[in-house]
Amino acid sequence: MDFSVLKTDAQGLIPVVAQDYYTNQVLMVAFMNEEAFKRTLETKQATYYSRSRESLWLKGETSGHFQEVKQVLVDCDNDTLVLKVIQKGPACHTGEQSCFHRAIDMETGELVEFKGGDSADVLKDVYNVIVDRKINPKE
Amino acid sequence: MDFSVLKTDAQGLIPVVAQDYYTNQVLMVAFMNEEAFKRTLETKQATYYSRSRESLWLKGETSGHFQEVKQVLVDCDNDTLVLKVIQKGPACHTGEQSCFHRAIDMETGELVEFKGGDSADVLKDVYNVIVDRKINPKE
Repeated sequence: MDFSVLKTDAQGLIPVVAQDYYTNQVLMVAFMNEEAFKRTLETKQATYYSRSRESLWLKGETSGHFQEVKQVLVDCDNDTLVLKVIQKGPACHTGEQSCFHRAIDMETGELVEFKGGDSADVLKDVYNVIVDRKINPKE
Repeated sequence: MDFSVLKTDAQGLIPVVAQDYYTNQVLMVAFMNEEAFKRTLETKQATYYSRSRESLWLKGETSGHFQEVKQVLVDCDNDTLVLKVIQKGPACHTGEQSCFHRAIDMETGELVEFKGGDSADVLKDVYNVIVDRKINPKE
């Protein structure tokens, strides 16, 4: 698929969601230009375009926290990508696994730390049900 | 948290990733302005700003496919949101559950249909292990 299929903004950029391949946790959102897109597909290492530095940005080049790209999804409007990646180390420069490590408290409106949210929570729920069924068999 | 904390683009918009609350599947990416942000927090129904229609867009208003907002995550740069939502019906106007229902084949570069990708796959893996252990006990 050629980059020209994608609808970019006025700067020739497209937003990209990086998502953990195993847990589906959203790790970060960044942008790609055509060169970043091509390099990502060729090298299978997530490469973005840094709007602040105005240059290509191989994720992990300085931190070692590379993203191995397993899948590239395209949305129905051809204007956004999702990369499903195996994240080496934390994705966020703060050292948090995900850049989305804060939430707005839905009651108070305050910004609070957010630790949950990967599908390990779902597995924990399943585990708890299994343990409960062992103690309280339903058969 | 006030909208002014967030860094918007020149149009006063911020990108928003809608993610399934249960499976962590990424459903869609859209934009919010200040009014959409306020309404989303007040009503707990995802409300975006439609760039094509240049107006507020209560997701599901015409389709019935509302998004009940359970969590709102903020990234480290204060320039992107993730909404974790309970999606009524499909999120995509095509009838697909997610707008990201196509993938770039990593070998051929072709655009292909993509059906996997929610954490139900992880649960299926766990289920298969459980069934296998029942047939082939390891204790």
